[in-house]
Parts: sequence; C-alpha cells; structure tokens
Amino acid sequence: MESIGIVAPQRMHFTEPLALRSGASLAGYDLMVETYGTLNAERSNAVLVCHALNASHHVAGVYADDPKNVGWWDNLVGPGKPLDTNRFFVIGVNNLGSCFGSTGPMSLDPATGKPYGARFPVVTVEDWVNAQARVADAFGIERFAAVMGGSLGGMQALAWSLMYPDRVGHCIVIASTPKLSAQNIAFNEVARSAILSDPDFHGGDYYAHGVKPRRGLRVARMIGHITYLSDDDMATKFGRALRRPAGGTDDEYHFSFDVEFEVESYLRYQGDKFADYFDANTYLLITRALDYFDPAKAFDGDLTAALAHTRAQYLVASFTTDWRFAPTRSRELVKALLDHKRRVTYAEIDAPHGHDAFLLDDARYHNVLRAYYERIAEEVRA
Amino acid sequence: MESIGIVAPQRMHFTEPLALRSGASLAGYDLMVETYGTLNAERSNAVLVCHALNASHHVAGVYADDPKNVGWWDNLVGPGKPLDTNRFFVIGVNNLGSCFGSTGPMSLDPATGKPYGARFPVVTVEDWVNAQARVADAFGIERFAAVMGGSLGGMQALAWSLMYPDRVGHCIVIASTPKLSAQNIAFNEVARSAILSDPDFHGGDYYAHGVKPRRGLRVARMIGHITYLSDDDMATKFGRALRRPAGGTDDEYHFSFDVEFEVESYLRYQGDKFADYFDANTYLLITRALDYFDPAKAFDGDLTAALAHTRAQYLVASFTTDWRFAPTRSRELVKALLDHKRRVTYAEIDAPHGHDAFLLDDARYHNVLRAYYERIAEEVRA
Repeated sequence: MESIGIVAPQRMHFTEPLALRSGASLAGYDLMVETYGTLNAERSNAVLVCHALNASHHVAGVYADDPKNVGWWDNLVGPGKPLDTNRFFVIGVNNLGSCFGSTGPMSLDPATGKPYGARFPVVTVEDWVNAQARVADAFGIERFAAVMGGSLGGMQALAWSLMYPDRVGHCIVIASTPKLSAQNIAFNEVARSAILSDPDFHGGDYYAHGVKPRRGLRVARMIGHITYLSDDDMATKFGRALRRPAGGTDDEYHFSFDVEFEVESYLRYQGDKFADYFDANTYLLITRALDYFDPAKAFDGDLTAALAHTRAQYLVASFTTDWRFAPTRSRELVKALLDHKRRVTYAEIDAPHGHDAFLLDDARYHNVLRAYYERIAEEVRA
Repeated sequence: MESIGIVAPQRMHFTEPLALRSGASLAGYDLMVETYGTLNAERSNAVLVCHALNASHHVAGVYADDPKNVGWWDNLVGPGKPLDTNRFFVIGVNNLGSCFGSTGPMSLDPATGKPYGARFPVVTVEDWVNAQARVADAFGIERFAAVMGGSLGGMQALAWSLMYPDRVGHCIVIASTPKLSAQNIAFNEVARSAILSDPDFHGGDYYAHGVKPRRGLRVARMIGHITYLSDDDMATKFGRALRRPAGGTDDEYHFSFDVEFEVESYLRYQGDKFADYFDANTYLLITRALDYFDPAKAFDGDLTAALAHTRAQYLVASFTTDWRFAPTRSRELVKALLDHKRRVTYAEIDAPHGHDAFLLDDARYHNVLRAYYERIAEEVRA
C-alpha cells in the first residue's frame, strides 16, 4: 500500500483567548496542522485524528526535506488505506502544550518574551478538544464524519462526543479508557518524579540554562516503554538474550551494570532517542492530562450518566495483551454506551503487541477499521 | 499470636576467601545473623530463611533498643506461628552486598581502607548460598530441615536445593520464579538507570562525597512498589482518590504537578523513606543478582535438566494477583520438578495483594505453611 507521499504542515494562528479548564487562559496560540485528501463540497467527509503522548499533527506521509520522517499512523491513513484519503479529508492537529510546533512550554510567552517553561498552564483533554473545535471552525467543518484516536487520542475522541455531540458522526476510541487507574497514574507519577528531580530541570526553566533534563526524560521513557509492550511480546522480542557486539557469540555473563541483556540495550536506546527530541515540560503536561481525564467525575463516577447526551455512533477497539489500557477498560465504556442504547461496534482484537498494537499494522485490526470506514463513507455519500 | 519478642543480631566473621561466580573473590567478610528457637541435639530442626531485595537477617522479633523495628516475617515466624520457633531453630542471614551490617559496598575494603563502593564485586544468588552454607557449617548444621524464602529469597531456597542437594530436607519457594522475564529485567534496568544517572552517584563512590543518590533511589523504589502491588489492590487502596489535607473535602483538581492523587502521595512517601535507609550500590547489586539467576542457563534453558540432581521435597506457593512473579512462573518450576517425580506441594493462593502477599498475614497462605511445617516437624521428631 502506498503512502500518501509528500505532505506539508501548516501553522494556524488563533487570536481569540482560550479559556482553560484550570481557570487560566491562553491569550493567543498557534496550532500545527496537517491535512490529507480533499474536503468535499458538503464538508461532510472530514475526519479528525487525535494523537497520543509523543506524537503530533504528522499523521501520514513524509516531508520533502525529511523523507525518513514518516507520519505516525501512515500504515492506517492514506490512499486506499483503512482511513482512505481518496474519500476522506483527514486532519491531524498537534495539541497545545506539545513540542512539535504548537504553542507549548518551549514557545515564547508574549507577556515576558521568554519561553513559558513552568508557567505554561496545565492543559486537559477537554482544552485540546476546544482548541481542535476552532480548527474545525477555521476549515468550515460543522460536523466531523468521525473523530478517531488511540490511547490518549481515544480520550480526545470520547471527549469530542461528550462536549460537541452534534459535531461528531462517529467516535472511534482505540486502546483507550474512560479514566486512568491508580496503577496508570502511578506509572505517570514515577516518570514525572524522574523529570522533576533531575537537577537539570531547574523548576521547568531549563531552556534559560541551556540544558535539558535528559536523565529524567530517559527514565520516564524507559518506564513508558515497559507499559507499551506486553510481557509476552517482550519475551518474544528479547527474552533473556544477552547483548553482544555484532558477531559476538559469548554466552557468559559479564558481571557488571553495563548493558548485559538485549532488553536493556533496547530500553536505553529508546530512552536516549526520546531525550533527544522530546520536551520535558511537555511530558509533564501530557501525562497530567491523562491523569485528569475522567468524564464520569462530575457524575459521582457514574460513566453512564456522563454519556447521557452523546449522539455519535461508536467504534471501540481494544487489544487482548494491552495491560496499560486493558480490554476491561474498553468494555466499561461499551457497557455505559449500551446503557443508552447507542450504536456501538466493539472489537477486542487478539494481538500480541500490548498497548503498542494500536500503532502497528495488524491485519485483523486494520480490517475492522477498513470495514467501519466503508460504512461511514456510504453515509457520507448518501 | 505473640511475637518472639526481643532478639539480638550477631556478627559472624569469615576469614576463608569466598570465590564468587564472577571470578572475583572476597578475602574475608562479615555476615549479620539472627537465630530464633533452639537447635536440637541432632541439629535436625534448623530452618534457613532467605531474604528478598530490601530485607535482612532481622526476620522476627524486635530489638531491645528499637521496639518498633519488627522483623520482616514476624507474622510467620515465632512461637506458635506457622514456622514455630518452639519447634524449629530458625536462622536469618543478611546477604553479602546488602546494607544491614553484612559486608557490602559501604564496608571498608581492607585493601584500601575506604568503602568498597563500586569496587564491591557483583554477587549472585549462588554466591549467597555458598556464604550461607558457611553459616550452617559454623552452627554445625549438616542439613537444614527446610530452606525457605519469598521472591528473591525463594530463588536462594531453590539454589540451595540445586547446589547442596544433601543439605536441604524441604525447599520452600514462595512468590518466586526460576528466572526473570524480559519485563522483570526491564523494570530492574529502569531502576538502575535512575540510580546510575543520578549526579550524586559519583560512579558508586558517593560515600566519599558525603552524599547519596537519593533521587535515583527514590525513583527506583517507586517503580518497585508499582510491581509489588496488584492493579486491583491499587484500585482498592487508592483508586482515583484525591490527596487532601486532613479534613479537606475539596474534590476539585488543583492543576499542578504536586501531589494530586493519593497514590502519588503513597509512592513519594515510600520512595523518600527508602532513600533514607537503603544503599544505592546494594540496590544495583541485588537487582543484578535477580537478573542473573537462571539455573537452566547452563542446560540450554532446560529447567528439567537443571533439576536432575535435586533431592529435596518442595513446597511452591504463588499468589493469583502477583504479576511480578505470576503463578505461571511457579507452575513452570512445579512442572520441571514433577518431570523428576519429586514430591511437590503446590499452592496457588487466591489473594488480592499482588507480589506483596508473601509478606502479609493471609489466613489461607499461612495455613498452607503451618500444615507443611507440621509435616516437617513430624519428620524431625521421627
């Protein structure tokens, strides 16, 4: 299947202040956006794709000057792909607070002329949805054919269907949950502690010191990676294999704290790579947005009550070996939707790759999405 | 049930060099030891209790000058308790490399007159067993009625039955595994990375700098705690409850990276407490000993082959919600023992508390141990 090829991001500037859930507001802000495909005359074929922790507006394709930088959902979004850009107009938006061009902690605060740093306000899933709604307005899109996301992106899709029930045809929630568990929050807290306690963090204003809290980011990412992979998948990929130089056949332990096992080498590599490209303040913000998401909170924890005013149709998908957001968490959502007799398709996909499965090219998973988008395409045409 | 009451540790010095699995050797060393109960005339009623990561020789009772410092398995070991000190002579040994008085990284290296620090050799489960065997020799114990341990302690018990088959009557392996999985190693590696990258680590020689890598130890312990508790247990204990000052009823988010949820407060408290009392070099050593343990390695991964020369009887116990060393890992051991028609009792205990369950006072669990020790006591009397 071909990729959509060369794409180009656009920077959209918004001047109207955005009131945030925390009570703070952003005076003006930029959002990085990419679009694929063509908006039809009725503006009825738009699909919003929401990103998870470390992704961005760059959902599909490559950049002319950076042909190796393939969009994070390129296997799913493109011409002839499950989300077919020959039929749909797809929008990717980099969320506020992220570090890929949208206004965030690295941006200059117009009030001080210096990077926001720790002064960037805490943002929530709901704030992102409000910001995305303005993107839709700018494109003249009244109603999305679908809003879709995986993991934290799935929370945004769900929030869309709650906050703008008339603007979402289909809500596609993949490998997600209606709220984090204590264990989920605990993993986020350890990752944040590693960053907050890094001496190079400087209370969030490390930009001024010409450093970044690499050590904390590295540990944060290593923890994250463990939760993205299933135990079985790690066993298959790495097992207890020893890391040896290319061609090395030495099967004895080296009795040190250097890399000994393949899995250690993998985690260190992932941690170092992440520390190179990701911003620590963004990591704090996005994990906090995850922690705070809980639409049932205002309804005494009653998710069914929280979903009373939804109008979308839903596709919910989970993966059997995902222990970060296990199938039971998706079923909780499905159950609450069925309490309202909403039209729900639920796919629990037997896949070995844990939480990461939502990003991977799994035939059963992609067939579910392809079939679902076929149905949406027929509605759009009708 | 009464505690055994006031106990006193003893320091045993060993002058004969101990050859380690790494090829290094320790010229002379001390081990901290506690004993409870009375060794009978036949010296047939001795039970060795092996400790896990952060525990010590202080298995039961309290110290006269520190009445709040209760032994880590006091609920199990004492007069009338499942391991009844009226019948058995129980020995606890603080392992080499630990930080509770036995020779370890904080001890003075006789060769330099300075703390060993990073120069302390990497030790293995097998090295510990060899050191414990010398303790047995010093007490004139030819054969233990039982060697018992939980988690890493269970690995030592298993190793005893492999290395000294004639010196172990019963081998009691609780909440343990015959080897770490890739995921287990991964968690250890992240914890070690947090310590190794702490600027206060100073390559392991932080003693000379008058500091300790508190930040790293804190993160390491927080990660550990997540793996000790089950997801369900965390949900029950903390859920998404917000942490508020005593009497506070504020149920709104505060939109910050300070403690917001109860589970965050718990982890920070555990991390800080641990950083106060534990040594970072010991943490590195003990997690590495966990990683390296794999008796099947010398048999091309064939655990059954590795167990061919065992002679003990076995009690293996696991806990249903333990995801660190899940029941499947215990069953793997049981299966390999049954391949040799060893006498094995296996208890898979339905308990909600995850890996930590092996330390807790659970009636079903303790009844299993009580019944098993009754049987050993009859053999000892016979």
